[in-house]
Amino acid sequence: MTPPAVILSHTQMGENVGSAARAMKNFGLSELILIAPMMEWPNDRAQILASGSADILANARIYQTAEEALAPFQLVLATTARDRDVVKQVHTPAAAAARLRQAAAEGVRTALLFGGERAGLGNDELSICDGVITIPTSEFSSLNLGQAVLLLGYEWLKAADTTPAVRIRSHLGVPATRGDLVDLFEHLERELDAANYLFPPEKRETMVRNIRAMILRSGLTDQQARTIRGMIVALVRNKYRGHKT
Amino acid sequence: MTPPAVILSHTQMGENVGSAARAMKNFGLSELILIAPMMEWPNDRAQILASGSADILANARIYQTAEEALAPFQLVLATTARDRDVVKQVHTPAAAAARLRQAAAEGVRTALLFGGERAGLGNDELSICDGVITIPTSEFSSLNLGQAVLLLGYEWLKAADTTPAVRIRSHLGVPATRGDLVDLFEHLERELDAANYLFPPEKRETMVRNIRAMILRSGLTDQQARTIRGMIVALVRNKYRGHKT
Repeated sequence: MTPPAVILSHTQMGENVGSAARAMKNFGLSELILIAPMMEWPNDRAQILASGSADILANARIYQTAEEALAPFQLVLATTARDRDVVKQVHTPAAAAARLRQAAAEGVRTALLFGGERAGLGNDELSICDGVITIPTSEFSSLNLGQAVLLLGYEWLKAADTTPAVRIRSHLGVPATRGDLVDLFEHLERELDAANYLFPPEKRETMVRNIRAMILRSGLTDQQARTIRGMIVALVRNKYRGHKT
Repeated sequence: MTPPAVILSHTQMGENVGSAARAMKNFGLSELILIAPMMEWPNDRAQILASGSADILANARIYQTAEEALAPFQLVLATTARDRDVVKQVHTPAAAAARLRQAAAEGVRTALLFGGERAGLGNDELSICDGVITIPTSEFSSLNLGQAVLLLGYEWLKAADTTPAVRIRSHLGVPATRGDLVDLFEHLERELDAANYLFPPEKRETMVRNIRAMILRSGLTDQQARTIRGMIVALVRNKYRGHKT
């Protein structure tokens, strides 16, 4: 699947092209296009900020108009901070990423269009885009160009990311089986009974239930269940030794 | 709801504290804490990069140890790029944001912990966190500290953002009613019949169905439906004028 091209229009600062390239590389984008850059090109500041993604800068293509730059693309979404008097579908970054992914999966050539630092995109440029993207921010909003590219790149990668929302590092053990846990519970309760901790008898059941719940909630791995049993053995041994001396 | 504090441990570059503050402001975070900063403080570079969020820097609190800095917090999630030999729940940024939001809604004091530029977080620091967060990236990963804060701030704001995934700017008109559309269809088809465009008769129904589908798919507003009817009137008038001359 070909990721979307990143098209920067009328960019003024080389730093922003550089940090855009670096953001692209972080999230697997590679095709960079500049429309009428308002700085010298190639650009030293861009090179410095692009650290590690110099290949993206080296392969960047330059056009003088949006019409030429956008000509080969079949789906183009434009980021815009301000409300425009243009009837377009307005996407959240996540919805834009999903739409671009689906189109790219069907072989459609896609692109993300970003305006210049000060003026943003012109209405002529917007008029040949399929829709716009607005990044949600607080009322104070000062996202720069590199940050906007970063967030869209992040959403692009995330749209295909299959990492579970929450997981436990698996090389450090697997969740304990119920059998491991019951062995642990019974071991612990036997020693607590021996120590007269589960007292008085009429409260014993409730105390046991609370202790089991506390241990269950911690989601132990098999290794951790063994560690706790080892700690119990050590504590009990120490206690007897204490009594002897 | 109190947003999570942002805690930066052993930060080396003022620029990164400044861009972290700016990222925080963009997404409605305000509480900044530094653990043992490895630069002078207050810091000129931080001030420059923070543009517009100087209040966050001015109110930043400094501690020398993670134990002191984290003491008041009840839920702390730490970002870490590298795999650690520590059994912790690993969250995607979105899952972390959801967990922090839910906790904050219940009055729990929450924080996000970020390590230094070179060494990341120490195992001692991680050992007092509730879980870790890993930002998905391509194999080339060079997210800096400011960018990591930006992405987590973005997910925090997004977790409560109710913007529809895709919408049409509503002040520019509401979707055309079926009545508006049927009037448009019939107007257009009448004129196309008059112009002998819907020919031959046995193909008429298919042609009409295709034209209607094409118009429906464009999701017209009421104003756009009127605009198209105006265009039809103008084109027809012009045609007759053309015939006359």
